[in-house]
Amino acid sequence: MSVDAVGTMRRGRGARKQARQTRDFTMLPALKRGLPLTEPMSQEEIERIDAASMDILENVGVVFRDDIAIADWKRAGADVRDGDRVHLDRGLVRELIKTIPETFTYHARNPANNLPFGRNHAIFVPMTGAPYLRDLDDVRRNPTLADLANFHKLSHMLPAMHSSAHHIVEPYDHPISQRHLRITYSSMKHSDKTFMGMTTSPKNAEDVMEMCAILFGEAFLEDHPVCTGNCNGNSPLVWDETMLGAMRAFNKRNQPVLCSPFVLGGANTPASVAPTVAQLNAEALSALAYTQVVRKGCPAIYGHYLSTVSMKSGAPMAGTPEISLMNLMIGQMARFYRVPWRSSNTLGGAKTFDAQAGYESATTLMALQMAGTNYMWHSAGWNEAGMHCSMAKFVVDAEQCAMAYRMAEGIRWDDFDEALAAVADIGPGGHYLGHPHTLENFQRAFFMPELFDNNSIEQWQAEGGIEVNERALTYTRNLLDAYEEPKLDAGVNEALLDYIARREREIPAADALNQEL
Amino acid sequence: MSVDAVGTMRRGRGARKQARQTRDFTMLPALKRGLPLTEPMSQEEIERIDAASMDILENVGVVFRDDIAIADWKRAGADVRDGDRVHLDRGLVRELIKTIPETFTYHARNPANNLPFGRNHAIFVPMTGAPYLRDLDDVRRNPTLADLANFHKLSHMLPAMHSSAHHIVEPYDHPISQRHLRITYSSMKHSDKTFMGMTTSPKNAEDVMEMCAILFGEAFLEDHPVCTGNCNGNSPLVWDETMLGAMRAFNKRNQPVLCSPFVLGGANTPASVAPTVAQLNAEALSALAYTQVVRKGCPAIYGHYLSTVSMKSGAPMAGTPEISLMNLMIGQMARFYRVPWRSSNTLGGAKTFDAQAGYESATTLMALQMAGTNYMWHSAGWNEAGMHCSMAKFVVDAEQCAMAYRMAEGIRWDDFDEALAAVADIGPGGHYLGHPHTLENFQRAFFMPELFDNNSIEQWQAEGGIEVNERALTYTRNLLDAYEEPKLDAGVNEALLDYIARREREIPAADALNQEL
Repeated sequence: MSVDAVGTMRRGRGARKQARQTRDFTMLPALKRGLPLTEPMSQEEIERIDAASMDILENVGVVFRDDIAIADWKRAGADVRDGDRVHLDRGLVRELIKTIPETFTYHARNPANNLPFGRNHAIFVPMTGAPYLRDLDDVRRNPTLADLANFHKLSHMLPAMHSSAHHIVEPYDHPISQRHLRITYSSMKHSDKTFMGMTTSPKNAEDVMEMCAILFGEAFLEDHPVCTGNCNGNSPLVWDETMLGAMRAFNKRNQPVLCSPFVLGGANTPASVAPTVAQLNAEALSALAYTQVVRKGCPAIYGHYLSTVSMKSGAPMAGTPEISLMNLMIGQMARFYRVPWRSSNTLGGAKTFDAQAGYESATTLMALQMAGTNYMWHSAGWNEAGMHCSMAKFVVDAEQCAMAYRMAEGIRWDDFDEALAAVADIGPGGHYLGHPHTLENFQRAFFMPELFDNNSIEQWQAEGGIEVNERALTYTRNLLDAYEEPKLDAGVNEALLDYIARREREIPAADALNQEL
Repeated sequence: MSVDAVGTMRRGRGARKQARQTRDFTMLPALKRGLPLTEPMSQEEIERIDAASMDILENVGVVFRDDIAIADWKRAGADVRDGDRVHLDRGLVRELIKTIPETFTYHARNPANNLPFGRNHAIFVPMTGAPYLRDLDDVRRNPTLADLANFHKLSHMLPAMHSSAHHIVEPYDHPISQRHLRITYSSMKHSDKTFMGMTTSPKNAEDVMEMCAILFGEAFLEDHPVCTGNCNGNSPLVWDETMLGAMRAFNKRNQPVLCSPFVLGGANTPASVAPTVAQLNAEALSALAYTQVVRKGCPAIYGHYLSTVSMKSGAPMAGTPEISLMNLMIGQMARFYRVPWRSSNTLGGAKTFDAQAGYESATTLMALQMAGTNYMWHSAGWNEAGMHCSMAKFVVDAEQCAMAYRMAEGIRWDDFDEALAAVADIGPGGHYLGHPHTLENFQRAFFMPELFDNNSIEQWQAEGGIEVNERALTYTRNLLDAYEEPKLDAGVNEALLDYIARREREIPAADALNQEL
């Protein structure tokens, strides 16, 4: 069956070749979900989780290991015991979280890349935080600023990626105490999509906010979310000074953070699905409520990092059925509170980009679509429990996200009657390849992944018998060759570089360990 | 974090080691779905597909290339034109399909392996039909009867596999004309789960039915589904003599067939999702209706083989978003007609067991859970567009099915209050590893895949740095070493062997090509 015949009827071989070579790097709009979500809990069960979480907040309490936060909570009317243990009345929690916007728009420096967010709008964000990468030669090593720049370039070019994130990989060739400045600049410079901001210390977070103020203008930040931070909790039921300080730095500028309990199910939560969600929910609510103490009406995102722990080895696991179930439940809780929510996408523990990595990533990607996740973090590159970011997996994950995007949009009906006329035209035993409806629609009808090989084994062997890891590395090289920088305004660029230079004079390069966790 | 400490408190190291070594081969009961299904179509949209399909059946018609079927249809009151083109009135179709049982029980020779089926009950069935295997040394070659026996043994031992299927691989060391007898015997002998029956010709299908009558008793078949056949349609809108004859052989003994249009979306259907479902639905309905012409009340299963075609290469694709969407829609149609339905599970086009295979398989596995598929065929081993069955992938897929099974069951609430008491016990900053609730529940709380490596890279390297393909082959070898045959009754075994001997004398070994498609 020669399907190239379809094209031949419309235009010459040269034109087709050119069309294949000219990839479209235009970012997909924010995903607008058209599929119904999977909601396993009844209203009664949602309320049961809510009541359990509120009981935890009232009776067990949450430790805020931070003097400013404790003072804030006292002023807000919370019952603080034993110095730092905050008992939160459910009425207070509900009152506070109701000012969190259910939806907002992320603003990028290129307004074409602005993103409606929340409710049925969702975005894909690359992985971050890897201390290693698997590079273009599939070598596992510590990353550099140049590697980070490459990941920001790829994020810029891959249509399903909605953000350039921040430290996709940790650049080891720059002093740790100053690194956040270079990371932020790299996100801003190599892509004109939205990005994330470092929360490795309150001071670092303030630097990120200053740089955002330079990029967007001080006043603009006040009314426009432009940058997302992440604040991890220490489950069970603890928030620490570093995270709370960084949270305040973002909130004071009206920028959103992901309020993310860090759950290793079975180790720092009960060994059970529904109770784990109840604890995680209490933890997320306590931080979400605190964002509103810091600044009423500030956008905030219900977050979590979620794995289950192997009771055989102690290792965190990914792609397990309980993680999928918990994501479904957490989605329901976030919607119950009318707050947008984050989950982690293509998680996995494989050491190489082998079949394990594929199963783990695809399982989680599908679960997140069913769960209706708004902020789909770690959507590209994650492997080895986050210890490395793979350049090969990065582009494959991004294509998988584009496929999930298409699925989650739902069904098109616009050509239904026209196509049924084709069924009558073709009749029993025919084929559709030359039919006008096919010629008009084949480009958009069925997603054609570029990174999956569906040819015969003979053709695959003739092309060198190359597995997906190596095919993806070639693809990545070609993509980077085709990169064009979305230039920053010269004045803004200069101001950013001046700021970095000044701060790098101020921050001792050697003072590493106190600056970053 | 040493989670082994959990075990240490309860029993000695020797006991734990033994528990790890003693795998439980007990078959999981038929999956009873507890998660809500993903239903993208409104009632109006379901009726729109139904109306479109009925229009096709009435106005375009379906070709039945088979004299007996044409005579049957004329007797049933259908409008037959041009010799073999059957125009089916929607009233007639609805009248016929309403006698198809919505649920039934599959009976296995071991009654402990009987399976409720239909509505929210579902089963996993291995792949079949591969002309090659990737063997225990990862060599791609033509299979033998011994290879087939190994796959039947694995199907018997893997808890999530509910069937030993039939020709999982095609045994090339036996004459093609007689092969169906040996295949059927292998299914029956090496496993006491339910199985599938060959439909490669009407005569072959009759042999399968005779062997079922020997195994279960002639009269038992009359009231008990014991064996499933598959009949592929030739889309668009054609059923051929071989398939229809085989279908009749099964239906006359009251055994179910999968009525499976063979769809290459865009090539033999319109290049569009909803219209493809409308055509496929018309095709499936025409065969489902015919089963009831052959024998009113006979169980039958709404089937399909579904891929989309790359308009760049002509190759069939798997794991694409449109296939997921179509599965969701087809599930709704089958439930609208109150007929159980089949889909294909871990499809993919990868040539090796690389990450592509993992993504493709997991995507489809998740889509099938969302769609509510009852008969999940091709659930283990499929690779290279069905051209080979991989011994490594077979066991990994089976474990993935066990994980999907756990997810699809839904949420347990039985220990909710008890676990919340643990949250209060532990309090902020503690850990749960030694808590009584954890000790009681850790074994069942979170699925621990045996074939995925979640250890540190250091430990993984110390263990040889082995990827999942090789780990799975070792696992498969160990599994086969531990196999114990579920012995057939001696008299039944002798009768089966006598039947095979007689039929092999009757069927010329050389008369290959006329016997099998």
